[in-house]
Amino acid sequence: MTRLFNDPAAFADEALEGFAAAHRGWVRPVTGGVVRAAGTPAGQVAVVVGGGSGHYPAFSGLVGRGLAHGAAVGNVFASPSAQQIRSVARSADGGAGVLLMYGNYAGDVLHFGQAAERLAGDGIEARTFAVTDDISSAAPEESAQRRGIAGDLPVFKAAAAAAEEGLPLAEVLRVAAHANARTRSFGIAFSGCTLPGADHPLFTVPEARMAVGLGIHGEPGIGEESLPTADEAARLMVTALLKELPDGVDAPAGQRAAVILNGLGSVKYEELFVVYRKVAALLGAAGVDIVDPEVGELVTSFDMAGVSLTLTWLDDRLEELWRAPADTPAYRKGAPVAQDPAAEAAAYVEDVDDTRVPDATEASRGSAAHVLAALNAVAGIVDTHADELGRIDAVAGDGDHGIGMRRGTTAALEAAVRAHDLGAGAGTVLVHAGDAWADKAGGTSGALWGTILRSLGTRLGDQDTPTAEAVARGVSDASDAVRRLGGAEVGDKTMVDVLVPFADTLAEAAGAGLPLSEAWQRAAVTAEKAAADTADLLPRKGRARPHAEKSLGTPDAGAHSLALITRAVHGVLPDHPLDQH
Amino acid sequence: MTRLFNDPAAFADEALEGFAAAHRGWVRPVTGGVVRAAGTPAGQVAVVVGGGSGHYPAFSGLVGRGLAHGAAVGNVFASPSAQQIRSVARSADGGAGVLLMYGNYAGDVLHFGQAAERLAGDGIEARTFAVTDDISSAAPEESAQRRGIAGDLPVFKAAAAAAEEGLPLAEVLRVAAHANARTRSFGIAFSGCTLPGADHPLFTVPEARMAVGLGIHGEPGIGEESLPTADEAARLMVTALLKELPDGVDAPAGQRAAVILNGLGSVKYEELFVVYRKVAALLGAAGVDIVDPEVGELVTSFDMAGVSLTLTWLDDRLEELWRAPADTPAYRKGAPVAQDPAAEAAAYVEDVDDTRVPDATEASRGSAAHVLAALNAVAGIVDTHADELGRIDAVAGDGDHGIGMRRGTTAALEAAVRAHDLGAGAGTVLVHAGDAWADKAGGTSGALWGTILRSLGTRLGDQDTPTAEAVARGVSDASDAVRRLGGAEVGDKTMVDVLVPFADTLAEAAGAGLPLSEAWQRAAVTAEKAAADTADLLPRKGRARPHAEKSLGTPDAGAHSLALITRAVHGVLPDHPLDQH
Repeated sequence: MTRLFNDPAAFADEALEGFAAAHRGWVRPVTGGVVRAAGTPAGQVAVVVGGGSGHYPAFSGLVGRGLAHGAAVGNVFASPSAQQIRSVARSADGGAGVLLMYGNYAGDVLHFGQAAERLAGDGIEARTFAVTDDISSAAPEESAQRRGIAGDLPVFKAAAAAAEEGLPLAEVLRVAAHANARTRSFGIAFSGCTLPGADHPLFTVPEARMAVGLGIHGEPGIGEESLPTADEAARLMVTALLKELPDGVDAPAGQRAAVILNGLGSVKYEELFVVYRKVAALLGAAGVDIVDPEVGELVTSFDMAGVSLTLTWLDDRLEELWRAPADTPAYRKGAPVAQDPAAEAAAYVEDVDDTRVPDATEASRGSAAHVLAALNAVAGIVDTHADELGRIDAVAGDGDHGIGMRRGTTAALEAAVRAHDLGAGAGTVLVHAGDAWADKAGGTSGALWGTILRSLGTRLGDQDTPTAEAVARGVSDASDAVRRLGGAEVGDKTMVDVLVPFADTLAEAAGAGLPLSEAWQRAAVTAEKAAADTADLLPRKGRARPHAEKSLGTPDAGAHSLALITRAVHGVLPDHPLDQH
Repeated sequence: MTRLFNDPAAFADEALEGFAAAHRGWVRPVTGGVVRAAGTPAGQVAVVVGGGSGHYPAFSGLVGRGLAHGAAVGNVFASPSAQQIRSVARSADGGAGVLLMYGNYAGDVLHFGQAAERLAGDGIEARTFAVTDDISSAAPEESAQRRGIAGDLPVFKAAAAAAEEGLPLAEVLRVAAHANARTRSFGIAFSGCTLPGADHPLFTVPEARMAVGLGIHGEPGIGEESLPTADEAARLMVTALLKELPDGVDAPAGQRAAVILNGLGSVKYEELFVVYRKVAALLGAAGVDIVDPEVGELVTSFDMAGVSLTLTWLDDRLEELWRAPADTPAYRKGAPVAQDPAAEAAAYVEDVDDTRVPDATEASRGSAAHVLAALNAVAGIVDTHADELGRIDAVAGDGDHGIGMRRGTTAALEAAVRAHDLGAGAGTVLVHAGDAWADKAGGTSGALWGTILRSLGTRLGDQDTPTAEAVARGVSDASDAVRRLGGAEVGDKTMVDVLVPFADTLAEAAGAGLPLSEAWQRAAVTAEKAAADTADLLPRKGRARPHAEKSLGTPDAGAHSLALITRAVHGVLPDHPLDQH
């Protein structure tokens, strides 16, 4: 279990701070993560990696010559926000564009995707690439749905080494895709980890049993077996990987492979070496030539007891990239050039300007006061129900929905107050609130709620008086944006199951001429019923829901919190259009 | 707990094999451990480190340019045998002598000391140095009694960097002593580890409590407190270390220090970084300039949950040595030169010649048959009582006495049979048996029993017929050698409490003209009583006995096994002098 922390909410930030202090020769802290202390050489594509905290040396430990140019670091097991990623990418950019790389998890896909869009707005060309190496997480025909685990390392490294050669962004992206297509991992686990401040493990594996294919956040595996011997564990993993050779590899014999035997946290070095002994023998017997093996802790989950085996089937080009030197805090290879002298202790770069707001009409500024009241009500209802939301989420997920929502709504309210104080209109207040929510909450729900507030704010603007129709159109925009970004549809047991009927009912009632409060009331009733109905649903396959099957009979946490929020907002809406207060 | 293993007895060997297979660019396996793949440059002093398995990257992971030239690797938490150390040192020797370095534990002191003596016999100049950095293990005025923990690394590194500069052995030893005198560590622990094949932890710490100063094998600490926050843990360790500055350092302000924050196994990287953040702040506030800090797992105890802080107070010379480049499997620093191409998979070097024995008289060869019978009885009695010996040892120690004795007696018997088949006399049979016992059993008892058999064999020789007086003189030699090597006296609750009265009684009875069997019988009765009396004793402070205070009321395991053996041997002694069968 995680025992050494201060305020659990500050854990990830404090860890990043300590990490940066211990590695000044390699990295420099910036808002949202770290970049190379020496910077990105001008004209070189920057590879920016990232993901949640708790997986060290992924992701900050992999920043340095020959590997990543920057890492965006989220909260514990939560994606960094789009704002964080954008900040790191802007600091890492060397003028030749940025490749954003991460493991394939819903929250990361959302935030990195949004960041790429915003970077384009900043004039920085950005592409995204999600690693999908875990063969136990989806069938071969659905390999694009697979999770990324320790295969992150060889895929990141191939792309970064190509960037180091000076190749253009499109080519670096092509190398990443090629490396990913030839990289496969398979893991087993014996026990879960307990997150900072939690009083029970995130997931458990029965005593003397082994979960086959369990994900690094407790995502479901493909079976459970008795605890194996070290040799049996080696055979299980090698056999699984030799069964699914990539395109272009007809048989293992005569092939070369990069091999990574990765410990998740409390399977220790000696055990890994005992297992590796057999892995090497089995691969040797299959005719595979092992190139520069790595045996150690390269992607962890705190002190989770588990181990995974990764093979990257090398061709000449991939072998060259795998063998290329690297010099990072946690991964060093070959003969790197001398370290730069320790960089000056850099201040955190603050690149978000929240001291200025666009001009707004008096009417819109008046409406902004209602927005504040609504956000205050939202923060209040979430605070009251945070523990309940956590409990519901823990049935099938990692139980942090309440924490994330509390962090998000608090930050949204603070940002809204700041913007209002600066004279912002209703639209800008909502946009600032949305950005702060996404930035501070992280995770999937943070990204989606940020989008909801931003969509609504963009529709309302800072000029016109918001009417019921305008609010309904804003909610419909938000509903569309959430479906587009999150990729979920009605029936997938997500907040979309509530947001879509809520938006439809609101649009219908507003279109029929009802005043906002009445229209919202009808829509909120629909939302509550829809949230309760999610208890009858199973999540769609492939989404990051550990133990999805257990959630039958329990509503979706995101759907439930959305319904609570619609009800709370109704309580502070005026009985008449927003301008008539 | 340790979950991935095959035969627990083969764990350490298999781990070493896998380690070597994964790191062919750095190390080459030899009998007893590993040496640098590139060898020791001619004329360079070789630094050979070592200790038990279970502490990776200590010790094999520290072999490579700029650090150790070789590592002798013992069984799990057991010293390598003198034979193993000698073998590694012979392979590592570059013609300028060898410095043997290890943490200050009884078994290591014994075996490395013996190895140095034998290396002298091989014509290789060897010195020993024990690291004593753990300030919680003895008071400042007894600092030579302290254990070695993570301070091993900076002390090994200083000596090795000096060797790399081409300095002579005496100077390298002086550097080691200087670095050790300025290196201090302090640790805390939250839970113990479970060794391969064991069904319960080696030691435990109560839930939500912290053991202050607990040793890495569960040796007793100096107190127990509530689980601290990360900042409190940092403050506790920094305060303890700033309280005991080395000679020549009057105050921390203005000093430079190498800082190592070491995780013992399942305190993970992010937690270490959170703690390091505060360590750095506290040292900064005290005016200490941190030089090249290391935060990670550098000396572990399987998955023990614990953390230690090490400071080496640097002067200009020590800073130069600390900053010097290094390139080993687990520790890389600066700008090392390119790796050598992977060495050929080296066969294990077999450098012990057990195919030839010295000439012996017919009489002595006849007596050797009695020696075989005695060793057979010894192996039998140990096998019968192995579980009981383990249970007795577990009260205060690590519970492996039965395992070690079984391994040793089995090996001794096999070696004796081999020597006898080659025509050896009684003396050579005993010497071979003793060497095999020490080599295969490892640990403190292995070294001492090896010495007992070797002393007895040396006295008996291969020419004369062993008389009762000769046997008694041999046993007295053994008693003297055990006291000299082990440093224990009567009353310290060790086998010495039995060996000394046994030897004295035997000498007295033989001197009085009693035949061997009768003299031995008297001595065996004395031995049994003395062994039982050890239940009333407390072990001497500073010896490696975890939970020593718990052992009151239980006899010492080593004393008990010695008494059992004297009784078993009596059962096979002829009723008349050994030559009259």
